[in-house]
Amino acid sequence: MDVELDRVQSYRSPMSTAPSKNLERFPNPNPKRDYEILFEAPEFTCLCPKTGQPDFATISIRYVPNEHCVELKSLKLYLWSFRDEGHFHEAVTNRILDDLLALLEPRSMTVEGDFYIRGGIRTVVEASHP
Amino acid sequence: MDVELDRVQSYRSPMSTAPSKNLERFPNPNPKRDYEILFEAPEFTCLCPKTGQPDFATISIRYVPNEHCVELKSLKLYLWSFRDEGHFHEAVTNRILDDLLALLEPRSMTVEGDFYIRGGIRTVVEASHP
Amino acid sequence: MDVELDRVQSYRSPMSTAPSKNLERFPNPNPKRDYEILFEAPEFTCLCPKTGQPDFATISIRYVPNEHCVELKSLKLYLWSFRDEGHFHEAVTNRILDDLLALLEPRSMTVEGDFYIRGGIRTVVEASHP
Amino acid sequence: MDVELDRVQSYRSPMSTAPSKNLERFPNPNPKRDYEILFEAPEFTCLCPKTGQPDFATISIRYVPNEHCVELKSLKLYLWSFRDEGHFHEAVTNRILDDLLALLEPRSMTVEGDFYIRGGIRTVVEASHP
Amino acid sequence: MDVELDRVQSYRSPMSTAPSKNLERFPNPNPKRDYEILFEAPEFTCLCPKTGQPDFATISIRYVPNEHCVELKSLKLYLWSFRDEGHFHEAVTNRILDDLLALLEPRSMTVEGDFYIRGGIRTVVEASHP
Amino acid sequence: MDVELDRVQSYRSPMSTAPSKNLERFPNPNPKRDYEILFEAPEFTCLCPKTGQPDFATISIRYVPNEHCVELKSLKLYLWSFRDEGHFHEAVTNRILDDLLALLEPRSMTVEGDFYIRGGIRTVVEASHP
Amino acid sequence: MDVELDRVQSYRSPMSTAPSKNLERFPNPNPKRDYEILFEAPEFTCLCPKTGQPDFATISIRYVPNEHCVELKSLKLYLWSFRDEGHFHEAVTNRILDDLLALLEPRSMTVEGDFYIRGGIRTVVEASHP
Amino acid sequence: MDVELDRVQSYRSPMSTAPSKNLERFPNPNPKRDYEILFEAPEFTCLCPKTGQPDFATISIRYVPNEHCVELKSLKLYLWSFRDEGHFHEAVTNRILDDLLALLEPRSMTVEGDFYIRGGIRTVVEASHP
Amino acid sequence: MDVELDRVQSYRSPMSTAPSKNLERFPNPNPKRDYEILFEAPEFTCLCPKTGQPDFATISIRYVPNEHCVELKSLKLYLWSFRDEGHFHEAVTNRILDDLLALLEPRSMTVEGDFYIRGGIRTVVEASHP
Amino acid sequence: MDVELDRVQSYRSPMSTAPSKNLERFPNPNPKRDYEILFEAPEFTCLCPKTGQPDFATISIRYVPNEHCVELKSLKLYLWSFRDEGHFHEAVTNRILDDLLALLEPRSMTVEGDFYIRGGIRTVVEASHP
Repeated sequence: MDVELDRVQSYRSPMSTAPSKNLERFPNPNPKRDYEILFEAPEFTCLCPKTGQPDFATISIRYVPNEHCVELKSLKLYLWSFRDEGHFHEAVTNRILDDLLALLEPRSMTVEGDFYIRGGIRTVVEASHP
Repeated sequence: MDVELDRVQSYRSPMSTAPSKNLERFPNPNPKRDYEILFEAPEFTCLCPKTGQPDFATISIRYVPNEHCVELKSLKLYLWSFRDEGHFHEAVTNRILDDLLALLEPRSMTVEGDFYIRGGIRTVVEASHP
Repeated sequence: MDVELDRVQSYRSPMSTAPSKNLERFPNPNPKRDYEILFEAPEFTCLCPKTGQPDFATISIRYVPNEHCVELKSLKLYLWSFRDEGHFHEAVTNRILDDLLALLEPRSMTVEGDFYIRGGIRTVVEASHP
Repeated sequence: MDVELDRVQSYRSPMSTAPSKNLERFPNPNPKRDYEILFEAPEFTCLCPKTGQPDFATISIRYVPNEHCVELKSLKLYLWSFRDEGHFHEAVTNRILDDLLALLEPRSMTVEGDFYIRGGIRTVVEASHP
Repeated sequence: MDVELDRVQSYRSPMSTAPSKNLERFPNPNPKRDYEILFEAPEFTCLCPKTGQPDFATISIRYVPNEHCVELKSLKLYLWSFRDEGHFHEAVTNRILDDLLALLEPRSMTVEGDFYIRGGIRTVVEASHP
Repeated sequence: MDVELDRVQSYRSPMSTAPSKNLERFPNPNPKRDYEILFEAPEFTCLCPKTGQPDFATISIRYVPNEHCVELKSLKLYLWSFRDEGHFHEAVTNRILDDLLALLEPRSMTVEGDFYIRGGIRTVVEASHP
Repeated sequence: MDVELDRVQSYRSPMSTAPSKNLERFPNPNPKRDYEILFEAPEFTCLCPKTGQPDFATISIRYVPNEHCVELKSLKLYLWSFRDEGHFHEAVTNRILDDLLALLEPRSMTVEGDFYIRGGIRTVVEASHP
Repeated sequence: MDVELDRVQSYRSPMSTAPSKNLERFPNPNPKRDYEILFEAPEFTCLCPKTGQPDFATISIRYVPNEHCVELKSLKLYLWSFRDEGHFHEAVTNRILDDLLALLEPRSMTVEGDFYIRGGIRTVVEASHP
Repeated sequence: MDVELDRVQSYRSPMSTAPSKNLERFPNPNPKRDYEILFEAPEFTCLCPKTGQPDFATISIRYVPNEHCVELKSLKLYLWSFRDEGHFHEAVTNRILDDLLALLEPRSMTVEGDFYIRGGIRTVVEASHP
Repeated sequence: MDVELDRVQSYRSPMSTAPSKNLERFPNPNPKRDYEILFEAPEFTCLCPKTGQPDFATISIRYVPNEHCVELKSLKLYLWSFRDEGHFHEAVTNRILDDLLALLEPRSMTVEGDFYIRGGIRTVVEASHP
């Protein structure tokens, strides 16, 4: 029952899961009812466009689905896709909201980015639709 | 005052308590008053329908009874009955709400499923009636 | 300055404080103003009417007095009086509300019973008037 | 740089700060704007008028000033002035509200007294104007 | 699937679980290893021998078993058996330790009673063997 | 079941419980065993000997009794007796330890005074014997 | 970018990840140094061997590796493998320790099972080697 | 890769970042949407105008931008600029709100100053526009 | 009972309390006993010697006095005296320890500086004697 | 006082701060004393070498310096340098310890990596020297 380290390393090749802006959706199982879904993702990171240094945030997404729900794994890969991109706090929070609105056309949605301290100041941006 | 291990094992046979979708109800002791009952059940588990792996959640049920209240022990057995079934987060939360609405016809009810982290993301689904 | 143990035991005889359903009230010192009083009592226990086993709860009482306020010591003895009685969670919370309404005729009142975990489930009952 | 203990003791004589019901006020620096001031004072103590024993509370005062603000040091001395007086929980909370209303004529004010456990019960009294 | 209230009431008759000082034990499944078991029971209540009024505590029991382990359900009934008895804080904590030592002869054991506030003072008693 | 306010006031006269430095003790129910008793008293107040202003603290007393235990009610009255006296933080903590050592001759004892913020600084004094 | 629900369902077939008692290991990357690894797994569930009802626990594993480390994914599948098995709290905690000792022969290891409340009592079992 | 201490000291000369009341702004990336930005700055200090002694606070700023957003680094330098100035709690909170309103003309804004305990009292001032 | 704002301003002139490195001491009231004093001061600020920008920290001082104790008010003024000085985290924590050792010659002392986040990293320095 | 967005963008070019494995050190200001420095860095991320997906951790470094201390800014850039590299949890924690030991030759050092939940399991690795 031993795993050799090189066999472990080879797990990497078929890496079917890559960062991607392609969000996926599936049919809402209860479109007749207004109900709410919340995702809380504490592992978000992107780059500061002014300094190139990494920023970290917890992204929270709360929405009432209409015809579709966002698929959880594609959401993970979508959030990962910002890792090497430069974004301002205000802009990236609105961008995530815009992308999810385009995918889902939900009855309502709120995206919050809660960013780690920079210069002794914590920043939280919250954008909603409608 | 010793309990032999095999005697302990035999406790299992008359197992009158088995998982069951048969929820029971009893007459609301105060139907004239609107009041609220909250159940918080941190021991919910079912299977992920995509991967077959176990999911875990805390299920919270908050309602204003009409003519009937749900019986606590049958609720425990009902939540247990999902243990070996595959359910999406969004669907199972709505399913629990539907089953309790059919049983109780309450004045109002909210069911929340707070699911453990998957892919770095915590998911909370909340469905209400009316 | 020694206290002998038997002298200590004799403290019990004149036990002027006994459990009692006789709540007492005193005139509201500020009947012209709507203000709120909250009592939080974490030492409530009664018996389960199905099994005879003890149940435990924190009882919270929040009200806006009208002409009278409930006297604190009599409230303590009143809550104590449930200790050897069998009550369902839903019924006892409504009962406490009914008894206090009859005593005080308050402008508004809410009673909450927050019961310890049974069968892996915590139960909270909240009843209000009007 | 040594301080002799008797020199320390003599600090007491000119004790210009004594408990006092004389609250002081100063002109509101922004009377054109409705804004809120909260004081949280965890060091309040008075006596129980039934038993003479000390009671302890945290007093919170939240108000929107009109023409005047209460001066912080005089508020400290005012709260201190209850130390040797007997007051019921309900009455003293309303009394503090009345005294501050008379001083400040604020646009709105709420006083909350959160009293330590007596007889296993915590009491919180909250009075507001208007 | 309705449960009539009187049928519910009749659940009480065969009450096989009654308070009892008869602790039960079962063979330690790993007597070769020193390992630790902790029970935390927040639902303990007895009477104050001076005033007859109820006291409440959380009882914690931590031990390294030798040949036997205490059976959980009998422990619950044992703790329940103090409900109508008068005990001083110091004495009851030592009593529980003594009873469990007599039953189990454990390699080591600590019993802690953490009692609710009386007269503004919380009391914690902790007794150990050896 | 009405309590007139003046009847309430008259409760005060027989005030059998007055502040007192006379601590009482009772025989240790388990002198053969070393066990620990902790009292946590968040309602301590005395005066600052430099300014005459009130100080507040939580006093914690932890000891292993020898032949005697301190009686809880006398401890409450003892702590109350400091209310109108001037004491430095360092001195009063040692004074309480000295008084309890003289009363109890315990196997070991620690007294901690955790004083509220003065000049932006919280002070904690902890004294032990032996 | 739509995902049809049946396509989602078909994800299940190649289910390469199944519950298994086959723990895997890989070579310790720093065998020259004593260092500690802690796993905290809040998603453990098995069955009560007396009643057949589900139990829930958080399993914590802390060890100093020798020549091998346990592979994280196989540990997840291993903990999953207890889901349909009956185990006493005391026995299953020792069993997990035994299995990991057999796999890893670590320099030291501690396994803790922190089980949800049953009968009003929380149980924690902690077993160590050596 | 050694850094000599004097080289470290010389970092100070080009000190391009100095305290300044000159707040900077940048164009709102999403002016079509009402969304909220929160800054939480726990490192605020100024002087008490009565005693000259330092005061400390956490400043929170919450706003819905219109055409412009405040630039984070200039906000840090702005908050720093109060370090050597005397300000009353009520006045400085309103001053920060006024300066940011003049810079941004936001759709709405709230500034909260949460000041450390003085004289045993914590003070929180909250001012909003409109 | 009005306080005019200019009268308030004039409080500042006799400012007898100024920042000062002159720590004061008084005779230890219990030099025969080893006991511990802890000061926790969350209002410490100095400047970064590299950038000139303000740093913030909580300073904790824990010591066993010998012949002398540090006077609390002089300690407050001493900590204030660092406000306009440049100090590295490591150096200022040791400096405070050195100054207090020179003043008090205590039996033991520990100084901890817990500094706010810079560059995403919190720094804590702890120095002890002996 | 307007900042145009493109001027903001141009801040990026002189990016003097880049990720780097070149840790810097400076002379220990108190080499005669054993004292402890703790860095807590919650913004660490690297890649999983098996799947290529990002991992997140809080890295804590605690050491007693000898002749040198690690410079804080270089430590930030060093931790950043792992962002695009694949590392196992166990290996990267030991690697950070090895790099810092080579730089500083400290009297003692502990590095802890506290990694976010994967597969329902949180992993913490702690390595020390000597």
